[in-house]
Amino acid sequence: MKVALDIHGGDHAPDVNIIGAVNAISESKDNLHVCLVGDKDQAIKVLEREGVDPSLFSFEHCDDCITMGDHPVRAFMTKPNSSISKGFSLLKNREVDAFASTGNTGAMLVGAMQTVKSIPGIIRPCISSILPHTDGSVGLLLDVGTNADCKPDVLYQFGILGSIFASEVYKIEKPRVALLNIGEEEEKGNLLTKAAYQLMSDNQLFNFIGNIEGSDLFSSKADVVICDGFTGNVVLKQAEGFYELIKERNIEDDYFNQFNYEEYGGTPILGVNGNVLIGHGKSSDVAVKKMLKLATEVSDANLPEKISKVFI
Amino acid sequence: MKVALDIHGGDHAPDVNIIGAVNAISESKDNLHVCLVGDKDQAIKVLEREGVDPSLFSFEHCDDCITMGDHPVRAFMTKPNSSISKGFSLLKNREVDAFASTGNTGAMLVGAMQTVKSIPGIIRPCISSILPHTDGSVGLLLDVGTNADCKPDVLYQFGILGSIFASEVYKIEKPRVALLNIGEEEEKGNLLTKAAYQLMSDNQLFNFIGNIEGSDLFSSKADVVICDGFTGNVVLKQAEGFYELIKERNIEDDYFNQFNYEEYGGTPILGVNGNVLIGHGKSSDVAVKKMLKLATEVSDANLPEKISKVFI
Repeated sequence: MKVALDIHGGDHAPDVNIIGAVNAISESKDNLHVCLVGDKDQAIKVLEREGVDPSLFSFEHCDDCITMGDHPVRAFMTKPNSSISKGFSLLKNREVDAFASTGNTGAMLVGAMQTVKSIPGIIRPCISSILPHTDGSVGLLLDVGTNADCKPDVLYQFGILGSIFASEVYKIEKPRVALLNIGEEEEKGNLLTKAAYQLMSDNQLFNFIGNIEGSDLFSSKADVVICDGFTGNVVLKQAEGFYELIKERNIEDDYFNQFNYEEYGGTPILGVNGNVLIGHGKSSDVAVKKMLKLATEVSDANLPEKISKVFI
Repeated sequence: MKVALDIHGGDHAPDVNIIGAVNAISESKDNLHVCLVGDKDQAIKVLEREGVDPSLFSFEHCDDCITMGDHPVRAFMTKPNSSISKGFSLLKNREVDAFASTGNTGAMLVGAMQTVKSIPGIIRPCISSILPHTDGSVGLLLDVGTNADCKPDVLYQFGILGSIFASEVYKIEKPRVALLNIGEEEEKGNLLTKAAYQLMSDNQLFNFIGNIEGSDLFSSKADVVICDGFTGNVVLKQAEGFYELIKERNIEDDYFNQFNYEEYGGTPILGVNGNVLIGHGKSSDVAVKKMLKLATEVSDANLPEKISKVFI
């Protein structure tokens, strides 16, 4: 398994990315090879400082990078020698099994759409977030920000994507897929969710269990929760805000500790023809390590092939 | 100040409503007179059981009620002898200054629109919720469920309504009004928030400070946060869900205790031509007492007149 990692992604690049990669390969028991994409001299300097043999890695050198402030489309088109562009070249040419970055999310999405492209039949790829449940299980929330405006058929497709992701990567049997709504009854909601409910309740491709409300996001009522990217992003950031409050107030609690984004490392872009992983911009080395672990799990699961089969 | 209270509203009617009213008048120092609307015999039975002199109250007897499961429009039209219908008659005929209920929210909205009606110029009335801030101040979130689908000009009007409510009732000077969005920059958002941003940033009627993200809802960055009723309802219920988790996990924390809905008692319907208060269906007697207190504050502030002036 070979994963390309953008060493220039995120707020603490390149150090946390490289240290995360070092720890990921040392824990992977030879299952993982990492190609560090970015300034090779800088990478080797960090590795030597950490006392790590650079020959444990391969390198894809480039001397440009897309910053957090860059315009995603423009940057991807005009910076072919950036770490994000180079990473996607490796993925497109099948030189790596997956490409992971904690960099500019928009540029990662553009890169995925321009190189490996979306799976035929998929209207809009999306990204997900983990919902820690009080019973110890986890759920998935999607979309969490890629598609601020969605049509009902897009939400319906998210149901398929989320269900495949939950069963193939999180090994949840027959995942229960719910629609995030403002009432449990079928007739509740806005125009979008009312129409999506109808599409979902008629479907044979996933196990739709109906509506779920904001108060039940962290219960184990559903394994996959579907919403548009605007709502999902507000929910995700509100949860992050709550977690920050818990930490600020020095509350130590095992359950709330699971709201630490570091626990999960990132999310694949679901619905594109390759394994593309996006991590949080503020990722620590622990988060990068977990993103690389998730990259191997997602690659092992071969999500693009499983998703393609449904959309043929 | 005379407030009509629906004694049949909520999950624990009529007891908690009547006990809440008893405590409200005893704390109000003669500023508050409550008219109990509903089955008079039942009300007197509860008052006598509690050792309270019934002559402290006036009564509007009726022997029907709208249940939580009733269809709002149909119920309001076909149950003229229900406590909600009777309460609105009193309000419309100016026999009371305000009408409060913890009953069927939809029927309360229909009743308000059918009797006192919306203020001319108001496209859609709305309801709000309190956001407790970490610095001890409070903010307002609106809409939280009345309008699942909103147009940009409706969000713009919510800015006016929220600003007036915050300054007149919560005595916040020049309230800072923010738009709930998925990025702080002007160009971020869905079609709705991008268009609403433009309307708000051009306005002279309230102090618009730009976008706010889900992670900042409980900071004191804004006094009033505007969103469509779908998003607001999800946010509100997610916050309720978090508060439930905090309680379940026996975490005692002064700040998080402020998420107890009991602290606030209810919300006025903003934008209608009368003082109409809606409380949570699960309200306790403490919540009912606070709803009645809020009813006096809202009546004192004379919100309908202040709002009307802006829309002339």
